[in-house]
This record gives sequence, structure tokens and C-alpha cells, in this order.
Amino acid sequence: MTTQGDTKNGSQSAAQVSLLRDVPFRLENGAALDEVEIAWQDYGTLNADKSNVVLLCHALTMDQYAAGTHPVTGKAGWWANMVGPGKVIDTDRFYVLCLNVLGSCLGSTGPLTIDPKTNKPMGINFPVITIGDMVRVQAAFLDQIGIDQLFCVVGGSMGGMQVLDWTARFPERVYSAIPIATAARHSAQNIAFDEVGRQAIMADPNWQGGAYYGTGKRPDAGLSVARMAAHITYLSEAGLHDKFGRELQDREAVTYGFDADFQVESYLRYQGNTFVDRFDANSYLYITRAMDYFDIAADHDGVLANAWRHTQTRFCVVSFTSDWLFPTSQSRDIVRALNAAAADVSFVEIESDKGHDSFLLDVPEFFDILRGFLDASAQRRGI
Amino acid sequence: MTTQGDTKNGSQSAAQVSLLRDVPFRLENGAALDEVEIAWQDYGTLNADKSNVVLLCHALTMDQYAAGTHPVTGKAGWWANMVGPGKVIDTDRFYVLCLNVLGSCLGSTGPLTIDPKTNKPMGINFPVITIGDMVRVQAAFLDQIGIDQLFCVVGGSMGGMQVLDWTARFPERVYSAIPIATAARHSAQNIAFDEVGRQAIMADPNWQGGAYYGTGKRPDAGLSVARMAAHITYLSEAGLHDKFGRELQDREAVTYGFDADFQVESYLRYQGNTFVDRFDANSYLYITRAMDYFDIAADHDGVLANAWRHTQTRFCVVSFTSDWLFPTSQSRDIVRALNAAAADVSFVEIESDKGHDSFLLDVPEFFDILRGFLDASAQRRGI
Repeated sequence: MTTQGDTKNGSQSAAQVSLLRDVPFRLENGAALDEVEIAWQDYGTLNADKSNVVLLCHALTMDQYAAGTHPVTGKAGWWANMVGPGKVIDTDRFYVLCLNVLGSCLGSTGPLTIDPKTNKPMGINFPVITIGDMVRVQAAFLDQIGIDQLFCVVGGSMGGMQVLDWTARFPERVYSAIPIATAARHSAQNIAFDEVGRQAIMADPNWQGGAYYGTGKRPDAGLSVARMAAHITYLSEAGLHDKFGRELQDREAVTYGFDADFQVESYLRYQGNTFVDRFDANSYLYITRAMDYFDIAADHDGVLANAWRHTQTRFCVVSFTSDWLFPTSQSRDIVRALNAAAADVSFVEIESDKGHDSFLLDVPEFFDILRGFLDASAQRRGI
Repeated sequence: MTTQGDTKNGSQSAAQVSLLRDVPFRLENGAALDEVEIAWQDYGTLNADKSNVVLLCHALTMDQYAAGTHPVTGKAGWWANMVGPGKVIDTDRFYVLCLNVLGSCLGSTGPLTIDPKTNKPMGINFPVITIGDMVRVQAAFLDQIGIDQLFCVVGGSMGGMQVLDWTARFPERVYSAIPIATAARHSAQNIAFDEVGRQAIMADPNWQGGAYYGTGKRPDAGLSVARMAAHITYLSEAGLHDKFGRELQDREAVTYGFDADFQVESYLRYQGNTFVDRFDANSYLYITRAMDYFDIAADHDGVLANAWRHTQTRFCVVSFTSDWLFPTSQSRDIVRALNAAAADVSFVEIESDKGHDSFLLDVPEFFDILRGFLDASAQRRGI
């Protein structure tokens, strides 16, 4: 596929990157980007009236490779269990798009992007972006490929924030929406965890004020600690207990030392160490900051329901019982506001002991709920 | 007061440090300490039959200055709201002792202790210690000052672990016990958070493999991140929301940058920055490790109730509704085991939105519960 808007049939290609034509792109903070690249991936076939488009919005550290096999890692895409032929998000029926978010390091414009003035990555000279900026870039890309309305916008965690922003910002462009394990604003506790991660990165001398590119040193240690702390918040206490308990790692007894005696330590260290190979520390700073700034009500006179006045979008809000990062109470806030706005909304809290990560895992009730909602919406939409 | 066992009347003196006479002191890991110093503090007056001793066991980063004014910081002791004349733990009635734990950096032997062979602090050549070692040092100190039985052993968090260890290890020496906001073993999630803190410290190049003393560089950045992460776990989501919400720090609007825009960020940074002035990074490693290793059941054939067979101690187990670091379920595990051992136990879960830190704060119901339990126990004991 080229950047000009044609679509291809089904099978997955290598990296697809498009340039936004409508530049400079003005950001919410007032700065402008003279060039915006969007790395994206599509699955399935666009139908004749372009009514079958499902936009997947990815979470903090994910990318555009939602389904099939990731061309770089060789592993399954982050939602390969959910998206594909005959799956819940059925690529035999829907044309599925996923775009790497603005600010990321996995193909789209972000701190890794070369500044033509210096011929070096922008690093922390990259402007601070927002969830709204991510969504507006996605909308501009869809304009470019000639897609007016999305049949459905779906995403969990930060992806859910984008879903909510889409429905508030472009209500007429979203037929249905599935915000999962998310919130209408980042809570104080979530900002606190993000700040710990950022401080861990910035405390690493190899961060070098963000200008580490080309120095042969990266803030891997700091980024690894940030990831470890964040990773705990993606799981539940019960899930960690079931998975690891106090089991020891490859040893019969504790060593009375600071090695990873316990499996959970070894697991966390592994999560930290492997993360630094696939993610850029500055991107981590920018994207967590975008999440911190997210607060839909603040953009609507402090009244969340105002964000959805007169909306025609059909909503399916999903939370998980053991998710303590984006607990059910935050989904209830969204549902209350949607009800106050007389929106068409269903809400399901799904029983799961797998914590926030439930939205990425095989949770049968979750799959059933999404399948049912998508089927009913597709029938109503005549797909 | 000298180290010989005499006690003084009421008012608080400057630092009191005693040497254990019965050395070398054998640790659970097999190593031995040739010299053990105990920094301690007392409040109130020992009665004639020595039946009115209350031992306070402190948490991870606390010290022996539980009541009154801290002689170094000039601030109130960590339990000054609870301990004093006429207070819940009434120093007009009880003789209250608090010892800085083994492994700490606030007066007792630990990584800061000078190794006579090298004339430098032991650093990570200090042996890894356990909660049991802390308790056995306390017991040896009490032997030395001629106190056989404790009227009550009280403590929250890691202090509660010591309380539980006391009752299992020396049942005949503990008349009553109040383990608060604690657990009979560290959970996988708690080990995970501790490991994040340790990795943050060890990732700091200034840690220098633990040998940072005298180099002019300390792992302050790493220790600060460790403290920030831990501090989040001491609070509750609701408490953070009530205290900070998304309020901005000394500004009208977000700055689109990485300064501490939000009050919660500013607060956390302050917590991290001030902590490094009062605590040693290596001590933090050792004490968190001792907590991770804590598992009373493991020392009793895997059956927690076995730890308390034939116990005569009166127990009052306390938890707080919003404590997610040591949730009520962990207190229930203790209570279940005590019931299975036919122990005399009462259990109260106290409503509080202040999270784990509730045990240090003014929570009226909590004070009432402790006062009632102590009164009833003191009457029964004839104090």
C-alpha cells in the first residue's frame, strides 16, 4: 500500500509508513510539527461503502502490529487472540486499522525522529503531546485515505483514552466505541506511578538530559526500573500470588543475598531487561506524560457528560474486577456521564484475577461481550 | 541509663546505645556478628514486678524514637500520637521500650557499622539478616536488662512481622500482642515492589556495588526513586485522590513539560528527596530483604497454625480497609491460623481511606480499639 489511500486485501505487509499531507500539524501545546509520519497496519478488506472500518487504539508500549505475527519480533501481535479471520474482531468482516501513536518509537513521529536542523533525533526537544494530539493525527490520516466514519473504535488502557477522546472530539465519525479498562482522566495514583517511572529514567546518568542518542549509552537501567514498577500495576495481587507465590527461582533455599531468589524477582527483572530492547526511554517519558494530562471533563467545563451531549455513538464500556490501575469505579464514572448525556451505553465489569492486563489476555467472558456488541452493532449498521 | 539494666524515670534522654554482651551473635544465615549495638529508647517507668513492659516494634524506615520529640529531627516521634502520658499506650502506666532494628542505619548495628578489619563501614559485606534475627537481638537485649516477659508487643507493617515472630518464637515471653497492618509472610506483590526499590538503588552508579561510603557519592537518586515507589504503596487511591486529585502545583495550567506540574508529583519528589537525608541505601536493601524472607509458616512445616500451638498470648489483630500493601485478607490468614491454634484472638478491620499509613495516623476507631484491648489485658494482668 502507498500513502495515497488505496487499501489492500487481507494479508499483512511489512512496515507501512505514511506522511501526513496536511502539515504543519498544530499540537495542543501550541507547537507545530512540520512533518508527521504514521506507521500503520491494516487487516481485512475495506467494503464498498467504507462502513466496516474498525480502528484499534493501542496502549502505552504497544505498536501497530495488533494481529498476526510481528514482523520484527516474530511474536504474535498484541491482540492476535482478538483480531483475525473468524476472531472476535473478524477481519473477514471488518477492515481493521491500527496506527502507532504519535510520540512512540515504533515507526511514527516521536522523540526518535531526526530533526533536519541538527540531523539528530529530537529527543526531549520533541514537543510534549497529548492523547488528543494522537487522536487528531489518526483522524488526519483517515481523512487522507478517504475514510469518514469508523464503524468502531476499540482500545484498552491508554487505547481506551483514545477511544473516549475520539467519541468526544469527533462524535459523528464514530458509530460505535469500546473503551476498555480505562478512565476519563488519569488519577493521582496513576500520575504518581508514571512519575516514579520518569524519575527512574531521568535519574539514570546515561539519560544525559535526554540527549543520549549516538553516545553509545542509553538509560537502560532507569527504563528497566520504570518498566518493573509499571509491570506490577498491570497485574493483580491475586494473579501474582497464583503465578509466583513465594516460589524460589532455580534454587532449593534462599541465598541470603540480593540475587533474584524469588521467581517474581526474576520475572520482573526479565520484564525490565527485555523492555529496554524494544522501547525508547524518551518515548516512555512523552507517552506517560500524555496520559497524565488526559482529562476529558477539563476540556468540557469540568462536566464529563458535556463531552457526549447529543452523541449518537453506541458505547460498550468494559472493566475488570481485579484491575487496580484502572479500577471499575473509573469505568462507572464514564458510564454515569454517558447516561447523563442520554447516550446508548452498555457496561460490563468482567470477573478476572489477571488485573489490568486482562484486556490483552484470553478471558472468555470478555471475548463473548465484545463479540456480542460488535455483532449487534454490525447488524444495525448493515454490515 | 547504662547498658547494665537500670531504668530511669520518664523523661526522654539522648541516644542510648547498648552493646549485646552475649556475642558472637549467630544469625539465621549462619554468619555471626562479633559485636552488636542496639540503639534504644524508653518511656515511662518499669514497675516493681517488671510486668508493665510494652515493646514497640518499628517499621522499615522508622527508628527507636517512637514518642516525644525526635532529638535529631526535632519532629514528633513516629508514634507520638499513640505513645505518651495519658495516651493510648500510656507511659504513666506502661514502661515502653523501642529498639532500632538490626540492619538499620539509625543507631543499631547494620551496613553502616565500621568493620574493625577495614576501618570502613561494612556495606554489603554486612550479612543478610531476617525478621527473626531482629527479634532475637531484641530478646537478648531484654535478657540483658532483666526483663523476662513483655506485657505487650505492638507494631505495624514490618513492626507487625516482628510482633508475630515474637509470639511464635518466644510465646512464654509475650502476654499480649498487637500485630497491625501486617502479614505472616511477604506476598509476591510485596516482594515485587521491594525488588523495584532495590533495583532502583543498585542501578544508580553511585551505589558502586554498595561501597559508596567515603567516596563523596551516594546513590541518592536511586534511593529516592525507591522511596517514591514505596510511598505510593503506603497510601490509597482514594486517599491520593482526596489529597491531591489532579491539582496543579503553583501554576494555573499544565506546562507541557516534565516539571512537577501536578501536586502529587511534587509531593512524591519531596518524599524521595528528604528520605535520602535520613536513610542509608544499603540499610534499605537489607531491611527490605528481611521482609521478603519473612514467612512464619515456612518455619513450621508450612502450617501457619503450628506457629502458635499452645500459645497463651492474647492477640488483637488489626487491619485497615484501604490498605492494599498489607490487605485485610492477610490479617484474616493470621486470624484463621490463630483460631485453628485455639488462641485468644480478637480481630478488627478498621474503616480508613488512608491506606497502609493508617497505623501511623490519627484514626479514632483504631485508637479506641487499642485502648480497649490494652485496658482489658492490663486489668487481667493486674497492672
